[in-house]
Amino acid sequence: MEKPYLLFLGDVADQLAAKTAQGIADWRPEWCVGQLRLEGCNADVRLDEISIEEASRRGAKTMVVGVANSGGTLPEHWTDTIVAAIEAGMDVAAGLHQRLGEVPRVAEAAARHGRKLFDVRHPSQRFQTGKGIPRTGKRLLTVGTDCSVGKKYTVLALEREMRGRGMNAEFRATGQTGIFIAERGVAIDAVVADFISGAAEWLSPENEPDHWDLIEGQGSLFHAAFAGVTLGLLHGSQPRALVLCHEPTRRHMRGLPHAPIPKLEDCIEPYLQAARLTSPECRFVGVSIDTHLLSREDADRLLKETEDRLGLPCTDPIARGVGKIVDQLERL
Amino acid sequence: MEKPYLLFLGDVADQLAAKTAQGIADWRPEWCVGQLRLEGCNADVRLDEISIEEASRRGAKTMVVGVANSGGTLPEHWTDTIVAAIEAGMDVAAGLHQRLGEVPRVAEAAARHGRKLFDVRHPSQRFQTGKGIPRTGKRLLTVGTDCSVGKKYTVLALEREMRGRGMNAEFRATGQTGIFIAERGVAIDAVVADFISGAAEWLSPENEPDHWDLIEGQGSLFHAAFAGVTLGLLHGSQPRALVLCHEPTRRHMRGLPHAPIPKLEDCIEPYLQAARLTSPECRFVGVSIDTHLLSREDADRLLKETEDRLGLPCTDPIARGVGKIVDQLERL
Repeated sequence: MEKPYLLFLGDVADQLAAKTAQGIADWRPEWCVGQLRLEGCNADVRLDEISIEEASRRGAKTMVVGVANSGGTLPEHWTDTIVAAIEAGMDVAAGLHQRLGEVPRVAEAAARHGRKLFDVRHPSQRFQTGKGIPRTGKRLLTVGTDCSVGKKYTVLALEREMRGRGMNAEFRATGQTGIFIAERGVAIDAVVADFISGAAEWLSPENEPDHWDLIEGQGSLFHAAFAGVTLGLLHGSQPRALVLCHEPTRRHMRGLPHAPIPKLEDCIEPYLQAARLTSPECRFVGVSIDTHLLSREDADRLLKETEDRLGLPCTDPIARGVGKIVDQLERL
Repeated sequence: MEKPYLLFLGDVADQLAAKTAQGIADWRPEWCVGQLRLEGCNADVRLDEISIEEASRRGAKTMVVGVANSGGTLPEHWTDTIVAAIEAGMDVAAGLHQRLGEVPRVAEAAARHGRKLFDVRHPSQRFQTGKGIPRTGKRLLTVGTDCSVGKKYTVLALEREMRGRGMNAEFRATGQTGIFIAERGVAIDAVVADFISGAAEWLSPENEPDHWDLIEGQGSLFHAAFAGVTLGLLHGSQPRALVLCHEPTRRHMRGLPHAPIPKLEDCIEPYLQAARLTSPECRFVGVSIDTHLLSREDADRLLKETEDRLGLPCTDPIARGVGKIVDQLERL
């Protein structure tokens, strides 16, 4: 995919729905020339608000559809904008289940103008079924109380901190946003169900004994829609270490208004019990709480109280860094 | 798919690998004209051993590739036989991950002779992600210590017994063999991972309060390759009742020589804990043990001892019927 990017946010209903654009803007701002939003868009990744023409003038080579809606389909009324970007000379990339090329007008425009369409969520390789055979190298996986609670940001922050300390660590992307950031990976939720854990084994193969794969978690073992993906990823990843991620202002499971968020202490044992099938020594090394919607005082209190209650280092990876989790990893 | 069928077993290594052919021969013998095996085949479903020519003479309309190998690919050296069946005027059906039409010679032969190719494992519909919203109607799901331990046979036996008692019960197929038998269903392991539980919700929709969906389980929560499929199916099925299935002579998890079979008593709580996310009242109503490799005396002892130990009705569904499990269901 050619850089730089114009990030397209459509008219999504909330900030979380633009988490792909947000992730790219936060972790690879140097690749972005601006954002393009349709009327009624409730997300904002705070890049320059620009038109397709202005993006072209700034040299944008690819328009990234930076959204992740449940079900992964492309709203019909976005087609005009996508076609306009193609006509302005840009390639288009998306991470939805529906392929860009499945929209006839998009496919035709791309063919007519000789532009490329990238569907990063669609694995291009075949996988084997999982084997569960112990392998060398160390792996850390982030898991969550819910979807969209900072699992990717936590491993990206860990990668930055560990590399800063000279540790041998590598981010492994398992979702569309992570793949845009890492420029490789596997969208594990788009793999055929039989191959979830096999794909996770492929993504984090055997490695040097001191090498850490930092694997982006997906979904939640407590989410009625996605727990199967979470469990297959957990088994295939064979993690030595887990970090539990949480967003404390969430009132119910993402997309499921009737489903309560589990308590942090009720997540620990189920995750460990599941992980031990392929990684008997697995343990939690920390808790990652996204406190950006809390006041400084409330955040202080919550982090301290959670740390004391669970007996695990507890931090906000973005606001306060992940040093104390990496301290735990160095001791393992 | 037009009947009757010729069942093709290839040269699979063991009887379990031919479980699709076995299932059709056991539950729909009236649809089968015979079996065709290649040299070295270690499976036998005890139908007449016939050639393609003889199958044609007996009126076979479709050759069913009746195997289920791990990974789901079609061995290259089976192509000649498949092409010969097409040339003899038969359609071909298979339930592998690899589509029949992906093999160029098969696709060409089908096009040339105007024959149809059926890939029953490939869902033809789009699913939504799971919602986990409580729905009316009652559902039973079979779960297992391992893969291939009688989960499908148990629900088929339950359907027969319950209908015999005038109960409102329906088999719901979730795998290729079940789909061949029921002539509908969803191969849940071939669904895109994000939609496992959504597909299970689609398969067993809301129904009359006295209606039982008898849902074929898949994989095992304790199988390192397939637990994600099992969990998503469990959450989407929202089962009121579970039956635990087991094959007592199995030495290790299917396809994983290093992985031990869990004890029956260690399966109960993890399955219930997982099921309760979407079905808080879920309980086990019986244990189904495949005793066909045991002597009558050993089977007697094992069933009795298991029943006493777990406090649940325990039976071999084929050799001894499922009456005592249905008694439990009538009491629910």
